[in-house]
Amino acid sequence: MKRIAIVGVGLIGGSFALALKANGFKGEIVGAGRSATRLQVAQDLGVIDRFETDLAEAVRGCELVLLAVPMGAMRSTLLALRSGLSDETIITDAGSVKGSFVADVRSVLANCARVVPGHPIAGTENSGVEAAFATLYQGRRVILTPLKESESSAVTAVQALWQQTGAQVECLAVEHHDRVLAATSHLPHLLAFSLVDTLTELQEREEIFRYAAGGFRDFSRIASSDPRMWRDISLANQEALLAVLGHFQANLSQLAESIRQRDGEAIEQRFQRAKLSRDGFC
Amino acid sequence: MKRIAIVGVGLIGGSFALALKANGFKGEIVGAGRSATRLQVAQDLGVIDRFETDLAEAVRGCELVLLAVPMGAMRSTLLALRSGLSDETIITDAGSVKGSFVADVRSVLANCARVVPGHPIAGTENSGVEAAFATLYQGRRVILTPLKESESSAVTAVQALWQQTGAQVECLAVEHHDRVLAATSHLPHLLAFSLVDTLTELQEREEIFRYAAGGFRDFSRIASSDPRMWRDISLANQEALLAVLGHFQANLSQLAESIRQRDGEAIEQRFQRAKLSRDGFC
Repeated sequence: MKRIAIVGVGLIGGSFALALKANGFKGEIVGAGRSATRLQVAQDLGVIDRFETDLAEAVRGCELVLLAVPMGAMRSTLLALRSGLSDETIITDAGSVKGSFVADVRSVLANCARVVPGHPIAGTENSGVEAAFATLYQGRRVILTPLKESESSAVTAVQALWQQTGAQVECLAVEHHDRVLAATSHLPHLLAFSLVDTLTELQEREEIFRYAAGGFRDFSRIASSDPRMWRDISLANQEALLAVLGHFQANLSQLAESIRQRDGEAIEQRFQRAKLSRDGFC
Repeated sequence: MKRIAIVGVGLIGGSFALALKANGFKGEIVGAGRSATRLQVAQDLGVIDRFETDLAEAVRGCELVLLAVPMGAMRSTLLALRSGLSDETIITDAGSVKGSFVADVRSVLANCARVVPGHPIAGTENSGVEAAFATLYQGRRVILTPLKESESSAVTAVQALWQQTGAQVECLAVEHHDRVLAATSHLPHLLAFSLVDTLTELQEREEIFRYAAGGFRDFSRIASSDPRMWRDISLANQEALLAVLGHFQANLSQLAESIRQRDGEAIEQRFQRAKLSRDGFC
């Protein structure tokens, strides 16, 4: 490809650009977003070749556009760039929820044949282009959720670009993706945020954080994630997230009841099942 | 000291021995436990100098005894070794709950002047003597919860040994310790076990674990911990654990309600509070 645009040059969009450059991509990478100051930082860091704050201008003449903005900004971003698209421009995204992106894109674009929704299963608790690095996607999975009208040439092109970043690309149905991610990513983030928030409200919070050990640090790391991004994800994946959260609340209540009843056997069986699962997949 | 006994030579007891040896301790370290096979492994690994499966024999002639057995085995262990103690033998432990250890020791020993309960805030999700290593306590905190009758010479001796392992030693009241640890360690373990157990029950569990990323791995690492040990801790710290678990359940329900109501501001505020706390202490 001769030119692509990345809208939203943060950890995800910036790492995509750096990974492509590190792996032989020779096209021009145009950064786009609202803040010229932030985009200038991205250009100074060598992440993008040039930038535009007018989104329609940014995508004009690009073969592919990657949307790496928060879920809540997808629709307004699509509206802002729409007039710069040609019939051939491939549109993909890196959003954590696919159902809401598909709804947004269908509400804005008349023709979605060149739309290929995607989600790289990668990230850190840091955000911003300063946190971007070329190996973020190395060996990680990227899930594409093509629409029924997505042209295979568009799917193949998106797949090839992600493979060039070092990622393994797979396809899933939209709803399936959203249920799986609600369980493995969105729910754990809610639990980490809620746990740290709970402890912060306790009287002993200073000692609590003083005596926090490695297990707690690992467990709560994701509570350092970007609050607005996770607010958007929580709302965008509301249905699947509330469903798995309900399962979790029921499971936790059963465990609490076993502890209340001093039912050691029930407690141990639950822990044992969890340990077997955890040891099996990691 | 010329001779000490470690009852329960696993990750915690074994690392205590290795750390002392690595830091110039010249006394004899006697390992004790139920399984001669496991103790032989510990001796072959150079963790202990010799071993006894008769606990009273093991502690006879020792200046200090460290109990590093599961919380649920503390009382029976104390009963088994009691006849080998002299009036001068210092008794300490490494249990994660101090209230239940104090209750156990008071029910078994007539005189607790040489008892100094302790808890090293260190560990990994692995267990067994093979997982032990000399630097486990380096720079970590060890909390002592002396009884009102604990003699200061005994407290000082226990403190000095832990300092020799590289740990920072501090003192807390028993109930205070148990509330703080319920929040920072015991509750996160319950959540991790319960989350993994919940996901294991879902229809999509294969994809769920297939697409689990780094955040989930970190978050769920502690669900690989020893189920029986954590069963014992859950029961031993029942009261404090159920209290903080109740706070957490209320917090999580509020978050779920905000998601249900699509109240983005409330969600973001909660996440923001958590992120500020997390960023502040780590």
